[in-house]
Amino acid sequence: MQTMTNNDTIVALATPSGAGAIAVLRLSGPEAIKIASSIFNSISGKKLGKQKSHTVHLGHIKDGERTIDEVLATIFKNPNSYTGEDVVEISCHGSNYIQQEIIQLCLRKGCRMAQAGEFTLRAFLHGKMDLSQAEAVADLIASDSAASHQLAIQQMRGGFSSEIKKLREELLNFASLIELELDFAEEDVEFANRDDFQKLISKITTVLKRLIDSFAIGNVLKNGIPVAIVGEPNVGKSTLLNVLLNEERAIVSDIAGTTRDTIEDEITIGGIGFRFIDTAGIRDTVDVIEGLGIKKTFEKIEAAQVVIYLFDAEKFQVSGSKFQLEIETIKNKYPLKNLVIVANKIDKLSEEEITKLKALLPTSHYQLQTISAKTNQGIEDLQNKLLDFVNTGALRNNETIVTNSRHYDALLKSLEEIIKVQDGIDSNLSGDLLAIDLRQALYHLGEITGSVSNDELLGNIFANFCIGK
Amino acid sequence: MQTMTNNDTIVALATPSGAGAIAVLRLSGPEAIKIASSIFNSISGKKLGKQKSHTVHLGHIKDGERTIDEVLATIFKNPNSYTGEDVVEISCHGSNYIQQEIIQLCLRKGCRMAQAGEFTLRAFLHGKMDLSQAEAVADLIASDSAASHQLAIQQMRGGFSSEIKKLREELLNFASLIELELDFAEEDVEFANRDDFQKLISKITTVLKRLIDSFAIGNVLKNGIPVAIVGEPNVGKSTLLNVLLNEERAIVSDIAGTTRDTIEDEITIGGIGFRFIDTAGIRDTVDVIEGLGIKKTFEKIEAAQVVIYLFDAEKFQVSGSKFQLEIETIKNKYPLKNLVIVANKIDKLSEEEITKLKALLPTSHYQLQTISAKTNQGIEDLQNKLLDFVNTGALRNNETIVTNSRHYDALLKSLEEIIKVQDGIDSNLSGDLLAIDLRQALYHLGEITGSVSNDELLGNIFANFCIGK
Repeated sequence: MQTMTNNDTIVALATPSGAGAIAVLRLSGPEAIKIASSIFNSISGKKLGKQKSHTVHLGHIKDGERTIDEVLATIFKNPNSYTGEDVVEISCHGSNYIQQEIIQLCLRKGCRMAQAGEFTLRAFLHGKMDLSQAEAVADLIASDSAASHQLAIQQMRGGFSSEIKKLREELLNFASLIELELDFAEEDVEFANRDDFQKLISKITTVLKRLIDSFAIGNVLKNGIPVAIVGEPNVGKSTLLNVLLNEERAIVSDIAGTTRDTIEDEITIGGIGFRFIDTAGIRDTVDVIEGLGIKKTFEKIEAAQVVIYLFDAEKFQVSGSKFQLEIETIKNKYPLKNLVIVANKIDKLSEEEITKLKALLPTSHYQLQTISAKTNQGIEDLQNKLLDFVNTGALRNNETIVTNSRHYDALLKSLEEIIKVQDGIDSNLSGDLLAIDLRQALYHLGEITGSVSNDELLGNIFANFCIGK
Repeated sequence: MQTMTNNDTIVALATPSGAGAIAVLRLSGPEAIKIASSIFNSISGKKLGKQKSHTVHLGHIKDGERTIDEVLATIFKNPNSYTGEDVVEISCHGSNYIQQEIIQLCLRKGCRMAQAGEFTLRAFLHGKMDLSQAEAVADLIASDSAASHQLAIQQMRGGFSSEIKKLREELLNFASLIELELDFAEEDVEFANRDDFQKLISKITTVLKRLIDSFAIGNVLKNGIPVAIVGEPNVGKSTLLNVLLNEERAIVSDIAGTTRDTIEDEITIGGIGFRFIDTAGIRDTVDVIEGLGIKKTFEKIEAAQVVIYLFDAEKFQVSGSKFQLEIETIKNKYPLKNLVIVANKIDKLSEEEITKLKALLPTSHYQLQTISAKTNQGIEDLQNKLLDFVNTGALRNNETIVTNSRHYDALLKSLEEIIKVQDGIDSNLSGDLLAIDLRQALYHLGEITGSVSNDELLGNIFANFCIGK
């Protein structure tokens, strides 16, 4: 990725490819308005270059005498645009043919095709957003649940960045003072107050630890919580999945005219995504602890954060002891996994039988849920139980949650250096050695917001963006 | 379709569904600005309702305290919008989740989901375009070749409509005069000059006939020219298709980052689409005139406008007489079809052999093309030959070409009535009977531009549009 070639004007389709009512093409760069003017004839007869920023104009895209389309052209003048450069957005009819014709025309007039993420890269390079905010843009586009969406919005609005920036500035201040001391080494002065410095290091340690800890929950909220459903064949695993899925569908179908692909192994409950592991396997007939399926079942459990042990309540009288053995096996092997015991088909049981079942699997000892996937009985309770496993407190309280593994790595490295600094203070390490560790900590903190960056880092980040953003 | 409920405010996604950099939602109706204002907090702090038409504003979509997205809102005030109503376009991040959240929010604030084509229907009902222009919008979105695109652009710019409108007005004028005569029937006056009237009817007849004739070429240009490739197995049919396809690909691949689904049975040559009939069959091994494949081959030829008879030049010495028999069979059975004889694999022949082949299939008698699909030899000549079959003269000369079967039907019905009028004039039919036929002709002409319309007609037309247009 040529991150540094910012003097040219780029063009790309900003809306999804495919046919729709309209499509939006985006030009950005020093020649954006000039190039757009050369292919755009406004109905009003006025030149695009003479128009104010943030205004929209109706006209025709012309390739010489040939009219390609009637479009709306919107003009954004630097620095008041997404990229911080001159930007023109062309809203044309949503035909692939027309999109390609206009893009080709722009290329002939001097644009080049934008690379993935290049608009946002330019926004970063022009100081419109920091690196963490730029990354949040990609997360926002990819967000598919209320939780992942809220995390991205929070990060995009810069709460996380400003927290890191503030700490880094304070630390930078001390680093400078300590380095200044080195210049006066023979005079043995202390510009940096060691008590205040110790306080800052403690504070940074606390914040870094909190942010690092938040990554586990952040990752879960962003990517969904992995859930394994285990149980005998025909116990109702896929029916249960469908019931959970239908709850979600009912909400979506309120919006007429929107279609939604069925992703049966991802379900959103209360805004939190749940990923059902190996749903193909769920429909298999080998998911038993005993026999051939045991290895596969353990693999599923290992990958999960929540395990649902599903059994047929009707069969409990006959196979109850076998079920109990299986449950205890899982509990002993994976004591830290969240295990929910779900008795399905309770619509077929009498009150008396249910009481008996609950006596054998007491809720004081087991997380037992009695449901009927067929009649929907107990499904809401089960959903609430699944939600209970998610610590959404931090999300509700608008606390900073780290979701990006790059940030996580940088935070870990920063903490490592800060701990070295703390050790240095404890052992009265000389200023010049302290300064080295401090610089390293500053470097890693700076990586998060892009205060320090390099072409390789930027290339890695923006290559994951879609074209046109 | 409730075509007449125009007092409400509608909302829809205007860009293709799926994830992209951005998505555009469109609101139209009397409450559009009010509803948008209620969910949009501009960064500048100014209210959307106070802004000028055709201006763009950066801000946040808020559901109460919850921020859904940072967006651009563009405001168009009636009548200066696509629909002629107040319109707000919201350009948000291209996540499905965000799109749905904003649409749901708009619905809760009083919008309803737009039906297919409802924005364009409103544009028609508010006099922003006539019916033929509205139909051209759908054609434009569907256009996938230079020819279909140019036809749609021409129709959208109203050349066709204005021609029909002008004729209809002149005719209406005469109809009124003739009806006026009926009021003075006892006085035996002639307000309508019969010579001028005769001239107009002749002119209309000519124009209608020309437009009706143009439909054949229009249909071909819009939908592509059906081509059948027939020949023995392994003669190189699919190689030939790929070679023709690769020519096209080479152009497209200039645009980095654009992907294009391979539609192997549709090829664009010189801006004209060619549809290869039953390409699955082309890869079969039954495409011979003799034997089992004969029925299928004849079916293919019948559906085609151009027939390519492909044979292996290497085998001509052995099977030449059989090939000649097959060619003559096709020529005799379908004398009006455009037949091209293509000798493939000529790279394997000596000059002498080629001369011999040409002597047996003289180009004075046959449309013979010698090619090598492998080495690309003769491919350009073949493409030019295919293009020769298309009468692109009308397209180049900007003549009106009818592409819409609804228009074609209406033109046929109009002509039918005009011929009755002519017969009436010839047989000195009384004014009251003439007037009836004239009214019918006027009705059918009016159907084209929507000067006369009804809910059923509008429903049929706009139901074929996509949502959001």
